[in-house]
Amino acid sequence: MSKILRIKMGEKPEYSVSDAVAYAGLGGRALTSRIVSEEVPPLCHPLGEENKLVIAPGLLSGSAAAISGRISVGCKSPLTGGIKEANAGGQAAQVLARAGYAAIVLEGAANGDLYKIVVSKDDVKIVKANELRGLGNYDTVEKLRREHGDKVAYMSIGQAGEMKMSAASIACTDMEVRPTRHCGRGGVGAVMGSKGVKAIVIDDSGCKNRQPADEEKFRAANKEFVAGLKKNPTTGQGLPAYGTNVLVNVINEAGGFPTRNFSTGQFEGAQKISGESLAELEIKRGGSATHGCHRGCVIQCSGTYLDKDGNYLTKQPEYETVWANGANCGIDDLDTIAMLDRLYDDFGLDTIEMGATIGVAMEAGVIEFGDRQGAISLVKEAGAGTPLGRILGSGAAVTAKAFGIEHAPVVKGQAMPAYDPRPIQGIGVTYATSPMGADHTAGYAIATNIMKVGGFVEPGQPEGQVDLSRALQITTAAVDSTGFCLFIAFAVMDQPETFGAMLDLISSFTGTNFTADDVTQLGKNVLSWERKFNKEAGLTSAHDRLPMYFKREALMPHNAVFEVSDAELDTVFNW
Amino acid sequence: MSKILRIKMGEKPEYSVSDAVAYAGLGGRALTSRIVSEEVPPLCHPLGEENKLVIAPGLLSGSAAAISGRISVGCKSPLTGGIKEANAGGQAAQVLARAGYAAIVLEGAANGDLYKIVVSKDDVKIVKANELRGLGNYDTVEKLRREHGDKVAYMSIGQAGEMKMSAASIACTDMEVRPTRHCGRGGVGAVMGSKGVKAIVIDDSGCKNRQPADEEKFRAANKEFVAGLKKNPTTGQGLPAYGTNVLVNVINEAGGFPTRNFSTGQFEGAQKISGESLAELEIKRGGSATHGCHRGCVIQCSGTYLDKDGNYLTKQPEYETVWANGANCGIDDLDTIAMLDRLYDDFGLDTIEMGATIGVAMEAGVIEFGDRQGAISLVKEAGAGTPLGRILGSGAAVTAKAFGIEHAPVVKGQAMPAYDPRPIQGIGVTYATSPMGADHTAGYAIATNIMKVGGFVEPGQPEGQVDLSRALQITTAAVDSTGFCLFIAFAVMDQPETFGAMLDLISSFTGTNFTADDVTQLGKNVLSWERKFNKEAGLTSAHDRLPMYFKREALMPHNAVFEVSDAELDTVFNW
Repeated sequence: MSKILRIKMGEKPEYSVSDAVAYAGLGGRALTSRIVSEEVPPLCHPLGEENKLVIAPGLLSGSAAAISGRISVGCKSPLTGGIKEANAGGQAAQVLARAGYAAIVLEGAANGDLYKIVVSKDDVKIVKANELRGLGNYDTVEKLRREHGDKVAYMSIGQAGEMKMSAASIACTDMEVRPTRHCGRGGVGAVMGSKGVKAIVIDDSGCKNRQPADEEKFRAANKEFVAGLKKNPTTGQGLPAYGTNVLVNVINEAGGFPTRNFSTGQFEGAQKISGESLAELEIKRGGSATHGCHRGCVIQCSGTYLDKDGNYLTKQPEYETVWANGANCGIDDLDTIAMLDRLYDDFGLDTIEMGATIGVAMEAGVIEFGDRQGAISLVKEAGAGTPLGRILGSGAAVTAKAFGIEHAPVVKGQAMPAYDPRPIQGIGVTYATSPMGADHTAGYAIATNIMKVGGFVEPGQPEGQVDLSRALQITTAAVDSTGFCLFIAFAVMDQPETFGAMLDLISSFTGTNFTADDVTQLGKNVLSWERKFNKEAGLTSAHDRLPMYFKREALMPHNAVFEVSDAELDTVFNW
Repeated sequence: MSKILRIKMGEKPEYSVSDAVAYAGLGGRALTSRIVSEEVPPLCHPLGEENKLVIAPGLLSGSAAAISGRISVGCKSPLTGGIKEANAGGQAAQVLARAGYAAIVLEGAANGDLYKIVVSKDDVKIVKANELRGLGNYDTVEKLRREHGDKVAYMSIGQAGEMKMSAASIACTDMEVRPTRHCGRGGVGAVMGSKGVKAIVIDDSGCKNRQPADEEKFRAANKEFVAGLKKNPTTGQGLPAYGTNVLVNVINEAGGFPTRNFSTGQFEGAQKISGESLAELEIKRGGSATHGCHRGCVIQCSGTYLDKDGNYLTKQPEYETVWANGANCGIDDLDTIAMLDRLYDDFGLDTIEMGATIGVAMEAGVIEFGDRQGAISLVKEAGAGTPLGRILGSGAAVTAKAFGIEHAPVVKGQAMPAYDPRPIQGIGVTYATSPMGADHTAGYAIATNIMKVGGFVEPGQPEGQVDLSRALQITTAAVDSTGFCLFIAFAVMDQPETFGAMLDLISSFTGTNFTADDVTQLGKNVLSWERKFNKEAGLTSAHDRLPMYFKREALMPHNAVFEVSDAELDTVFNW
């Protein structure tokens, strides 16, 4: 039976465990956003004792359902001032769900000591762990492994989370027990830091997979589902072979590859940092370009990046990481990008926010565009918490403010990811209107604008983008609640039988008849809870806008400005 | 005849002059807020080309009306994201109005060069002035004086404005042609910097006082008005003798003197930095404690502060400066405070925002509370634009964010001034609800809560504070439009004949029959324009709140929390 674990930090940390029955049918983002919207005062300070950090595996996490290992973390965001859900792969979701927990809710505030929380099926310990203070995620996990071993999952914050930086992430260990999968966006790591929690150790020993209500139907559906993912060219070939970074050439070709702080849409060094180049280099050095980030992954879009001496450096950098720290900074060198990825994972910083931030700092003249060592030095400043590092660790909006420049590519204070919204206007609608701030994963219009998945909407025109983003935001909010990796969308959007298999998986697991309409209703519910929170936190339609310069300054090569009108943007949530 | 001068910065700066007839009856804040609300897109970036900086003398400025020399500057604020009006004394208002200008409107954006604008009755010059780059206000004025002399008024920005810091002010020269009177709040200096304008030289040679419509009535009213100001104990005795800093003992006694970043309400070192101590020291060293900041001032609340060697250091620091950089930082030394005042005037930084910011930095552990040299060093970092200085120059909210602390005493991103809103709840209502962000001058409830001017409302209780703040905000918005120094309020609130004389002054000058109802209507109009702008800029009732910790953490000695309910706050503008 699923339980909710509440941990109240404060002078004397304590915990309680309750039945999750009130949240039946909710997992992942649905559960984090439900609890945050019900329990967190929208006007509280994100680092204050009234905020809560909710950690929830997906609805199907911990079951045998393929690729269902996403874990959601929710809170009021220090970066956006609104509600936040950030999800990640790695082992945490599967292990936490198998151990019987629908969610962990961190409440209260730090008392000055740093703690680790050790959770297993029948036991919860809140243990002082000041010996972990100041450690990066790699060292933190290394120390914890000596005591807790390799069979458990770890969630932790690095120096950035301890310093409560708005770009701080929460790391989840992967199958090799490395802290490489991050709930990255919105400063969730700062909220964990504000509670004085350095790490969560999740132990599912003695636990089995969560059992479906209808085992036979579940097995059949899972088989069909996996077959569909294998058959699809994106999930069956492109992502396994090259990882997400397969997109570099695609988006660069489309002229929507934001280069040098969104000042142009194509990068002359794209080929050097493309997915093809990355995979070739990884394989040549004895790493791997095809790897799963959690048990049960069948897409295998991850990989292993070795340095030029053949030593492990980091996991295969994602497309958004390569973009943010590559093209966006004028850097065309994979070793530099991989080193930055390693540093971000270690310090516990969002690779997208930080790459965008370095781009802003470069425009402000702190270092030159293309300065590889300079970029590495800047990130080290963030990890060290120097004054400059404090600015950068606060994200792109604060960095632009501190240096007095207008070109901050942010919405609701959160940096835009790797797709320029001028030549690809569907993603601009998502950036503008998502309750999360600028976030490609909240409604991935690239699929339909560029990859022609789920139909086609001409990317450079304003027509049709609002309908597209609306549909995607709704579906995504639902998928983010299941535990399924969002990449299943490539298969389920164009393969009705795979979509059916996904529904059957949910139905057979939960013992309900979960239909396409239920997907839609769940997505609408989640978005409604999130928007209600945001409204009470003071976010209005004025915040559902791109910065004005995206309407004024045309992006080459398409000479594109963002043309979706404000009035249209205000209809995204009309349903 | 009054004119509007519009200066469009950009590749080729140009100007145009038009008749101000469309704005008849509007001056100062009424005129800046009217133009900003009509012409500036509320969603523009404050440092972008769409923002405008509007500079307007008061309605009666340039006439013989006593103490009518306030100049207003308005724009979209880089600090608050809402509309801003900041006003100052000094010579600018009188000189600009005599030269025939109702307003200067700076539009467009910098082209890379730095300019000075030279305005006289019949001529406008936009002149490259890159030789002024990087200079403080003192050096800037010194250089300009060599060319333009001592008979003109100067408005300028220091390094902070050039760096577009959110705490940057605009300096106006006083009667001694020193840059000591600042439009301080909300980062107006950053907006001037974003236009590439370093200085405005205002020359009224060949001009006479603006003439009243009914000279006889005007003269009689002015005589009565001056007599009323002289008779009133605050404007006739307290302010002339001790300056605004007479308040230290008063507010400390009331337990509302925010000490060490608003952590307690009384400062053990209050006596050492009181107005009485300040005046005694100034006189002892051969400075002055009684001095006017502009021609026509009859209150004379300014003064001259000499260093211990008898050399001019700065003008007499205001109460809010003494508080912000004294008690709020745990500093009980007037020489330190005066040095900080001098540095702020020179760099062009808001003394309130910066003192509050240093308090936050002290709480964050950057330096210790009470560290005199440390505080001076921090301000020098701001002036030098080091990374730490960039944080501090961005104000208290950004500083708290960068260092990950909750205790940012701000509303709408602007730091609270020298009165804790817990034991003095009327000022808390003004802080929370003013369209300006936390601003004591927007509705100075201290008058009635503490000084028993205009009646008495018990300061520690929530009852009656909303009505008080509403009335004061309305009246203040009107007074800020006249050019009159707000300090006339002490006399006009309790002396009907002085209030009548003020109305007669306006009536006889404008040739209208300006009544008490007209004061109210003007104030309501101004607030309505401002609130409309803010609403469209995304500021909602959620922003009309004090930070949550003012409701949670009790302030000693009165063990007070802020108790005015959110529902009550939302009625401030119900009229």
